[in-house]
Amino acid sequence: MQKIRVAIVGPTGYTAYESIRILLRHPQAQLTVLASRRDPQPHIADIFPALRGMIDLRCEPIDPEAIAQKADVALMCLPHVVAMESVPCFLNAGMKVVDLSADYRLRNPADYQQWYKHEHVDAKNLARAVFGLPEFYRQQVRKADLVANPGCYPTASILGIAPFVKRGLVDPADLIVSAASGVSGAGKEARPEHHFPERNETFEAYGVGTHRHAIEIQRTLEDIAGASLNLTFVPHLVPMHRGILATIILKPTQPITADQALAILAEQYKDEPFVRVRKDLPSTKDVALTNFCDLTARIVSGKLVVLSAIDNLIKGASGQAIQNMNLQFGLPETAGLLC
Amino acid sequence: MQKIRVAIVGPTGYTAYESIRILLRHPQAQLTVLASRRDPQPHIADIFPALRGMIDLRCEPIDPEAIAQKADVALMCLPHVVAMESVPCFLNAGMKVVDLSADYRLRNPADYQQWYKHEHVDAKNLARAVFGLPEFYRQQVRKADLVANPGCYPTASILGIAPFVKRGLVDPADLIVSAASGVSGAGKEARPEHHFPERNETFEAYGVGTHRHAIEIQRTLEDIAGASLNLTFVPHLVPMHRGILATIILKPTQPITADQALAILAEQYKDEPFVRVRKDLPSTKDVALTNFCDLTARIVSGKLVVLSAIDNLIKGASGQAIQNMNLQFGLPETAGLLC
Amino acid sequence: MQKIRVAIVGPTGYTAYESIRILLRHPQAQLTVLASRRDPQPHIADIFPALRGMIDLRCEPIDPEAIAQKADVALMCLPHVVAMESVPCFLNAGMKVVDLSADYRLRNPADYQQWYKHEHVDAKNLARAVFGLPEFYRQQVRKADLVANPGCYPTASILGIAPFVKRGLVDPADLIVSAASGVSGAGKEARPEHHFPERNETFEAYGVGTHRHAIEIQRTLEDIAGASLNLTFVPHLVPMHRGILATIILKPTQPITADQALAILAEQYKDEPFVRVRKDLPSTKDVALTNFCDLTARIVSGKLVVLSAIDNLIKGASGQAIQNMNLQFGLPETAGLLC
Amino acid sequence: MQKIRVAIVGPTGYTAYESIRILLRHPQAQLTVLASRRDPQPHIADIFPALRGMIDLRCEPIDPEAIAQKADVALMCLPHVVAMESVPCFLNAGMKVVDLSADYRLRNPADYQQWYKHEHVDAKNLARAVFGLPEFYRQQVRKADLVANPGCYPTASILGIAPFVKRGLVDPADLIVSAASGVSGAGKEARPEHHFPERNETFEAYGVGTHRHAIEIQRTLEDIAGASLNLTFVPHLVPMHRGILATIILKPTQPITADQALAILAEQYKDEPFVRVRKDLPSTKDVALTNFCDLTARIVSGKLVVLSAIDNLIKGASGQAIQNMNLQFGLPETAGLLC
Repeated sequence: MQKIRVAIVGPTGYTAYESIRILLRHPQAQLTVLASRRDPQPHIADIFPALRGMIDLRCEPIDPEAIAQKADVALMCLPHVVAMESVPCFLNAGMKVVDLSADYRLRNPADYQQWYKHEHVDAKNLARAVFGLPEFYRQQVRKADLVANPGCYPTASILGIAPFVKRGLVDPADLIVSAASGVSGAGKEARPEHHFPERNETFEAYGVGTHRHAIEIQRTLEDIAGASLNLTFVPHLVPMHRGILATIILKPTQPITADQALAILAEQYKDEPFVRVRKDLPSTKDVALTNFCDLTARIVSGKLVVLSAIDNLIKGASGQAIQNMNLQFGLPETAGLLC
Repeated sequence: MQKIRVAIVGPTGYTAYESIRILLRHPQAQLTVLASRRDPQPHIADIFPALRGMIDLRCEPIDPEAIAQKADVALMCLPHVVAMESVPCFLNAGMKVVDLSADYRLRNPADYQQWYKHEHVDAKNLARAVFGLPEFYRQQVRKADLVANPGCYPTASILGIAPFVKRGLVDPADLIVSAASGVSGAGKEARPEHHFPERNETFEAYGVGTHRHAIEIQRTLEDIAGASLNLTFVPHLVPMHRGILATIILKPTQPITADQALAILAEQYKDEPFVRVRKDLPSTKDVALTNFCDLTARIVSGKLVVLSAIDNLIKGASGQAIQNMNLQFGLPETAGLLC
Repeated sequence: MQKIRVAIVGPTGYTAYESIRILLRHPQAQLTVLASRRDPQPHIADIFPALRGMIDLRCEPIDPEAIAQKADVALMCLPHVVAMESVPCFLNAGMKVVDLSADYRLRNPADYQQWYKHEHVDAKNLARAVFGLPEFYRQQVRKADLVANPGCYPTASILGIAPFVKRGLVDPADLIVSAASGVSGAGKEARPEHHFPERNETFEAYGVGTHRHAIEIQRTLEDIAGASLNLTFVPHLVPMHRGILATIILKPTQPITADQALAILAEQYKDEPFVRVRKDLPSTKDVALTNFCDLTARIVSGKLVVLSAIDNLIKGASGQAIQNMNLQFGLPETAGLLC
Repeated sequence: MQKIRVAIVGPTGYTAYESIRILLRHPQAQLTVLASRRDPQPHIADIFPALRGMIDLRCEPIDPEAIAQKADVALMCLPHVVAMESVPCFLNAGMKVVDLSADYRLRNPADYQQWYKHEHVDAKNLARAVFGLPEFYRQQVRKADLVANPGCYPTASILGIAPFVKRGLVDPADLIVSAASGVSGAGKEARPEHHFPERNETFEAYGVGTHRHAIEIQRTLEDIAGASLNLTFVPHLVPMHRGILATIILKPTQPITADQALAILAEQYKDEPFVRVRKDLPSTKDVALTNFCDLTARIVSGKLVVLSAIDNLIKGASGQAIQNMNLQFGLPETAGLLC
């Protein structure tokens, strides 16, 4: 059987790196193109010395027509705004696209404008993009040319909240997510606040009230629940490389026990290959380097507490992107992702 | 002027170590006794090699009468249950006591029984113990023979919540604290879950619904607010040595802006030497190795978010203990604690 | 083509975990048995929650005859001494064995007795065991029923030193290795000195003059060089999970430049799939989660400095074990190991 | 008694921060001036939020004449090259100076030129500067107007090597230092290689053959030993904030036991308040936040291995600077430094 040919566009950041590592172990996909804005074009091993001896590819310019000759799908690892300038060209060239940026995640261009402070320039494709959270949009992803790969906090948060808002079991006006991420979530660019001696041995909140994933979580849950809702989202940084834990606090609309809450999670995800409902408390270590989301539920002082752990770079980015790609191409959904 | 003479009882754990370090720089107090249950009695430098050359004291048995000849005050760094077996003897021997254990923090013995699974055996002293949070109980601490030094999460949480519940500005039935601590909070004893390769590079919740600091926070806030309240407390572990950040989410009873909330914090703590109200977001690094509590406030989706950072071992334990000791003896409250 | 069937004996430690993860992505091998000394036998997902959903195997007793019905090869992940009690049984049952313990690494039982303080009880198989460092013993490994998988420090050290001692380019009486390892090298058992708050944010030497890998490095290099030699080995612990860097300092017998030294490394390893000779300095991060050894060379004040980095759990343990297994069964040497 | 008045020049880096913290607990010195090149001049609490509430000083321009009215001594925390442009002015204004930069550490301007790639512009003061390692230059420091505060690696290395080279017990042509430092040693400026996700969980050598501390160690030891010598120096970076461990490997000129080596260290440092000779192995944690250097010795395969641990920011920088200042002003050498 012929392998799916994959191009990675924007190959120098952390999500590109993780995508490459996963593709190297994917039995039915092959990385054929790395396309970069850099000039001159680097060999991938010069960007990531870890990859030398594993992959021998030099980057090439972002020329969708040329790339379409060599690849069936583009994993877009470009920054937001830059992504939506390229995505239409890849689609027009006949390729499928999984976009890891935020550019196609918000269905309403006004939301994009408000939170990303930039006009959306590809309304046409935005209208047909599918939010790539397979646990809730699997059928649409299968048929999608363009998948908007979810953000890391949204993946962890939505998987923990959606089963309850969907069933009307919690007050949609009172959703709280206190979440914490490893520092790779901030990207590869050095910044003073992420200088090792500043970032090590400290814990703090950031982007309180301004983090762009808040609107992504809210809108997606509204879509799933079919109702408007109110979300308080507080992200934090943990001195570690990878991982997200979302601590979700919900207000039950009727009395519910922890066992009942666990049963609802189990029911919701009973056929899901990448969601693990646990009785004990999840940790980011248990999901590190995997595409799993680990979930549990507790009742504390009458509130429903859901804990949701993912690897921000895998289920929160590259792993989910390849899960989506698998769906788009009719491959086994778990190909490359259970090892 | 004669220095206050201090005994540390239970000198082998992290809070004892931090107390020793602070006392070494205290201009008006002198560490004269280290009393331990160990046999044979170790030199303190054998327990903490870091202290060699800084202090030359060998531990001695826990003999309150003998210790009372050499010390004016006992900082009790024993485990709970063990502490309340010794505290009465030190009081009877005429010493003042600051107890860093949990034994005298809960005024109601039934709470103690329920949460610590052990009958309280010193009801008499429990009745007169003062909860040593100077920002709310300063006058009582000044006159107290026995101070119950607050827990780390309670210190951070109460300082962030009390100004608002006290003023009736938030719904007392809907208090949420999602907090995170460095691993020193778990104590010095090695346990499988804190083995370095297991604890490093991971973030997780623990003690959800069962952590004993929940009742301590609740009862103290009820005392301050003069009303019963409902608290949801979710603690987490951060792969770092020290520090606590409490992310507090409150429901305003009437519309409030972030500036108004900051003004309330500033008003509440305007004369406090160890509370710093900030406009930017606090981090545990900024309070590490200090007795400060850093606070800020934000409004997110209608909720009042208060962030409160302390060093769990200093303001959350040993620093606050010495702040209390200073008050008990009429010393400047900040002696030894602003350097 | 039928897959090689693999048993892991002693499945609860870190090397077993890494072996399982590698086998999950191995295209020509299948994990069929996990054999443990525990009673009752746990499901592997109860030991490593991270593996739930990836592998569904319950441990079974260590019964070589029974296991031989289901597996072609045993990866022995037992502690030393325990390993050599089981290995003969697996060989007798007709299986091939890769032993990850130290029991068959020292050809001379007297060395074993001296360094491991225990008599060697399987001299017969010791005599025919092959030291599984493919870069120097590939042909022997191909034919070996029993492979003694090298230790982590020995792998990093020997790969860096051997090319030079073999060619007589350095003084064999003056070999120095100052090496540093992540804490996973100390194993999974919690010990006070590896309690997170004690191990984090510190760097120190350990086992100076007593670490058992010293004799393993020395004897192997003597075998490769055909001459006796003198080694000074100083290991250190780094507050990180995985990785070893060996800083090797050698005394050239004749003037040599860095370029010449690099050329010798390049020549020695030109056909090796898992040795990468670099011009820049290697880091443990670049080899983390891979089976690579990264090497470079410098001249400093007349000394030849060789830097050698591996992942202690992969090339220093489980990855190399599977590399050896691949060789024993005539599979592509890199199968499962370049992804 | 009147306190010594101290100015810190260049107050925004890590060594300035540590100096401030130490001065806050110094009973006989007072920080009166912070002088910066910035414009506008920041309040120190805006640079280091941790200091708010502990010190209330705004920075002022670097005007030596004006500063000399308010301070008796300048702790120069400026970068090299910049320092030597200011130092003469402070001396001319009648102040004593402790320079924490490298500008006055190398007696021979040619060495400076070669290693720092910059001509030395203050030969006059270079000629009278004293290398501020009190353990070997105490009498000179007492009388010095200008002290060149040693580098961090040099402090740890020289204290470990000097007792042996001075006594002719080791081959001066064969000195090896493999040392490792916390990341604060790289300074406060964010650089891609110290971005948290790049620097965390990795260990590597850097500056092999080029690190400028090599010549500082060599020249100082030559001065102490009265003979030329040859040093191989290999520095490494550890993923932690602070601390240096120097692993020193020496070739005895005659047989020596570990006990004899320890006795020599003990004899050398018997009156030193900040050198602790230990029988067990030192760790950087034990000296963290102190001005101590912990030393031990071992014999391994005929080599003398000396292990030397300091806090790079304290004994390796700010603590030693204040130790030198104490000596310059006739204060107790340990003032402010044993707590």
